[in-house]
Amino acid sequence: MARLFKAAEVNAAMREQLSAAVQELQAKGIRPTLAIVRVGERPDDLAYERGAMRRCEETGVAVERFLLPADVSQDKLLAVIDEINGDPCYNGCLIFRPLPRTIDEEAVRQRLSPAKDIDCITDGSMVGVFANLPNGFPSCVVQACLEILDHYQVDLTGKRVTVVGRSLVVGKPLAMLLLARNATVTVCHTRTKDMEECCRQAEVLVVAAGRAGLIGAEHLSPGQIVIDVGINFDEEGKMLGDVRFEEAEAIVEGITPVPGGVGAVTTMVLVKQVVEAARRQNGLC
Amino acid sequence: MARLFKAAEVNAAMREQLSAAVQELQAKGIRPTLAIVRVGERPDDLAYERGAMRRCEETGVAVERFLLPADVSQDKLLAVIDEINGDPCYNGCLIFRPLPRTIDEEAVRQRLSPAKDIDCITDGSMVGVFANLPNGFPSCVVQACLEILDHYQVDLTGKRVTVVGRSLVVGKPLAMLLLARNATVTVCHTRTKDMEECCRQAEVLVVAAGRAGLIGAEHLSPGQIVIDVGINFDEEGKMLGDVRFEEAEAIVEGITPVPGGVGAVTTMVLVKQVVEAARRQNGLC
Repeated sequence: MARLFKAAEVNAAMREQLSAAVQELQAKGIRPTLAIVRVGERPDDLAYERGAMRRCEETGVAVERFLLPADVSQDKLLAVIDEINGDPCYNGCLIFRPLPRTIDEEAVRQRLSPAKDIDCITDGSMVGVFANLPNGFPSCVVQACLEILDHYQVDLTGKRVTVVGRSLVVGKPLAMLLLARNATVTVCHTRTKDMEECCRQAEVLVVAAGRAGLIGAEHLSPGQIVIDVGINFDEEGKMLGDVRFEEAEAIVEGITPVPGGVGAVTTMVLVKQVVEAARRQNGLC
Repeated sequence: MARLFKAAEVNAAMREQLSAAVQELQAKGIRPTLAIVRVGERPDDLAYERGAMRRCEETGVAVERFLLPADVSQDKLLAVIDEINGDPCYNGCLIFRPLPRTIDEEAVRQRLSPAKDIDCITDGSMVGVFANLPNGFPSCVVQACLEILDHYQVDLTGKRVTVVGRSLVVGKPLAMLLLARNATVTVCHTRTKDMEECCRQAEVLVVAAGRAGLIGAEHLSPGQIVIDVGINFDEEGKMLGDVRFEEAEAIVEGITPVPGGVGAVTTMVLVKQVVEAARRQNGLC
């Protein structure tokens, strides 16, 4: 049976490291602070916000929420972002999306300072990921995959890593970060002819296709590490990954469950990136 | 023996298409125009400039040169770029680099309007390549690889393509463009463990490692198409690719020679991107 790569274990270790890092910063008079911008009251946003605030509390990171009505004007929203950009108290900023249709989301995204863009919504962060430069940050879900691999000491150097999915949100940026970690990276997608073989050849398989149960025994081989980025729901509302878990568990060496895997690490990564932003903004790295 | 994928053939076809496209634009009162910014008199720059100007002449694209002394000030150079950005007569702009050390090259790069950035020096162009959006343009050398594959009707959909090299200039952007063409893309590099196998498995192999003769018989298999992006020089000054040409020619189905391959298509691509920029800027695509 495969070893389970559990969010709870990763989060516990990260919580400890981050708490120590926050204390170190506080000793220098710096309080890492997350600004949250939420427009309206979408249940998904509220749930994620609660999670993020809990992580902040656990680690000593401060949070300031900017809560705006669903009919907020574009100008008012941009003014809030300008305030966050301009105030050195705020190290990182999370803006919930999608925004209401009355808002030009592209304009809002690009208004945020890349230095405070801890979830890769700006072009500046995207260039940073592509060019392997510390402009902005990768998205939390992409970085969560790396945090899990690091926690379980999966060295990526020279490894054959296959990424299933070529989205701008996960597949492509993840491929870039894996290359920066010296992995040999293959990106597969819906048009790939021999998906099974492409996946079987991988030493590390990252699945971000967004299709429940796409990957199963026929794609897997013994010794593999499988990271399942998929978050899908069946008709009964049960959360499912992109990988058929029972089949995979019997074959591979290590796997992230869904739920309790990648998705459950993203809020801790968010906090980590706020702390990292605070370090950068204070010239500490 | 492999079929030779020759720049001369690709250029001849592109010349014809571009001449027709330029005539069509001129019938609408639009004269596609390239602005060249050259600081100093480096022999490499002069040679490339002559090539670019010849391509422009062949196709009916106008050229305006902004020639600045090697000791030009940063402000003066930025003012020239502002002039080019602001004048709708100029559709695309080529800035020779490296710039003298007295100049902040990063500031110069980012000053150019991405819409006129026909050789991918701005972050805007880079985001366009990464996100597969028509912001700016890919670099001419990267686009030249695709032009050659297109000319010889190599359909990339579902094909296993291996890119050797992960540079920001060639390997990474090329991987992104190949994904957009529906190829299954693997990126190999110096840390790849089984480079030979990785290359042999490819149906299309693109080599952009920057090391003369790195790839030979042991990396190749029958039926492959090989695109050699390498431009290296031996002790006698002879130009060599990254592929051992004689070994490859005996095995693979198609290959670009060096010289007379990828490098010799770049100036024609430059002109093509000026014409495309003129179309975009006039709302014709």
